[in-house]
Amino acid sequence: MEIEIIGLKGIPLIKKGDDLSQLIIQAAVLQGIQLSNEDILVIAETAVAKAEGHVIQLEHVEPGEKAKEIAKHTGKDAELVESIIQESNEIIKVGPDFIISETKHGFVCANAGIDESNVDEGLATPIPVNPDISAHEIREKLENNTGKSVAVIISDTQGRAFREGAIGTAIGISGMSPLWDRCGELDLYGRELKTTSIAVADELSSAASLMMGQASEGIPVVIIRGVNYFQKLRNESATIKPLIRPKQFDVFRE
Amino acid sequence: MEIEIIGLKGIPLIKKGDDLSQLIIQAAVLQGIQLSNEDILVIAETAVAKAEGHVIQLEHVEPGEKAKEIAKHTGKDAELVESIIQESNEIIKVGPDFIISETKHGFVCANAGIDESNVDEGLATPIPVNPDISAHEIREKLENNTGKSVAVIISDTQGRAFREGAIGTAIGISGMSPLWDRCGELDLYGRELKTTSIAVADELSSAASLMMGQASEGIPVVIIRGVNYFQKLRNESATIKPLIRPKQFDVFRE
Repeated sequence: MEIEIIGLKGIPLIKKGDDLSQLIIQAAVLQGIQLSNEDILVIAETAVAKAEGHVIQLEHVEPGEKAKEIAKHTGKDAELVESIIQESNEIIKVGPDFIISETKHGFVCANAGIDESNVDEGLATPIPVNPDISAHEIREKLENNTGKSVAVIISDTQGRAFREGAIGTAIGISGMSPLWDRCGELDLYGRELKTTSIAVADELSSAASLMMGQASEGIPVVIIRGVNYFQKLRNESATIKPLIRPKQFDVFRE
Repeated sequence: MEIEIIGLKGIPLIKKGDDLSQLIIQAAVLQGIQLSNEDILVIAETAVAKAEGHVIQLEHVEPGEKAKEIAKHTGKDAELVESIIQESNEIIKVGPDFIISETKHGFVCANAGIDESNVDEGLATPIPVNPDISAHEIREKLENNTGKSVAVIISDTQGRAFREGAIGTAIGISGMSPLWDRCGELDLYGRELKTTSIAVADELSSAASLMMGQASEGIPVVIIRGVNYFQKLRNESATIKPLIRPKQFDVFRE
């Protein structure tokens, strides 16, 4: 009874226009791994953003008044703050060293998910425009090329309310539902389970993050193998939406 | 390059006084597994609470005025609400169907972590009194019995702000730091990493939860093997505290 978290070594630094599905298949072959049915691939969002050319050149950003004001308050560069504003629906909290917003996708996170690591100096990678579509395109190519039925998750490393430290978090998905609704199932004693749903896509992203952190050379793609409820969660038209709590139902956004 | 998540089958329903370390070693032997150095064992908190006899008999709980009032507001049993109040430092938010509090340990979570699943009718399991000590006792016995150097994490399944679905979350630890501080390390391009710390214990708990959910018969103990930064995180006196953001630094608790 085992789940394997397999890190794909040897994926080169990603450039705009790279076909991630090809790089994944090549790296797997070099490592002697064949994709199997029910494999779940977790891909770091920075790799996706770079392949899609969705990169911000900070020196080309023109900070507005609001950005300049928040920059003064937070000690962040005004260009970065302007980018955060542009990537956000709503700035939720601003403090001495942080900006928490709701991104255009609906995610509540720090800096609108804009990342200044693992990209050239002067650049920053925002969250892909539509991570579900990114995941879908990669999955389609992987499935067409290998004939295997897989799922793809795009992951980010994000902080949380109430707890220190960031964790791997899902921001896009294709091929499986991100949420496992166990409502109505019975527990060990035959009582109906009250914890209704598990955010499996986030758990998979955190599991993948354990592997992505293994090496300084960077492991942007991880294969998770052996999740025996894959078929239960199989969903050709899944999106990440079920993981986003609507604002009106979130008591910490009143 | 692989991390394994191994589910221990055949652990019986836990009763008060059970020695979890013995049950773990027996189950591992039956499965043909030997504990190895650097194994990380993740144990579901319900199993620990039951072994320690830390179980609430709801019919013996006498609800106070505050509990009765919150019970009316939330539709929860007044006895359960009284138990939540007793397990909490502070009730943070109460809504039509939820109670979010800070537990005596400092965790912000729903229902003070009190669980009514996987325990006999009329009973509920709160979070162990001191999950770090629970983890430490189990680790000490495992290490003494096997001669191997391991880490132990006690995990719970908890909801989050802003996102739907619960995930495996660490509430106690022994033998390794829960937080991996990567501040100052360099990224792929030689730039200093800005994401300073990863909540590895939470990621491990989420990874274990993927396996705990595999079977309706219940897998309360999971071995995670192959985390190659184990020695970096090795810490004989680690506690879960570094994962708890102090109230005064949490912008969502103002």
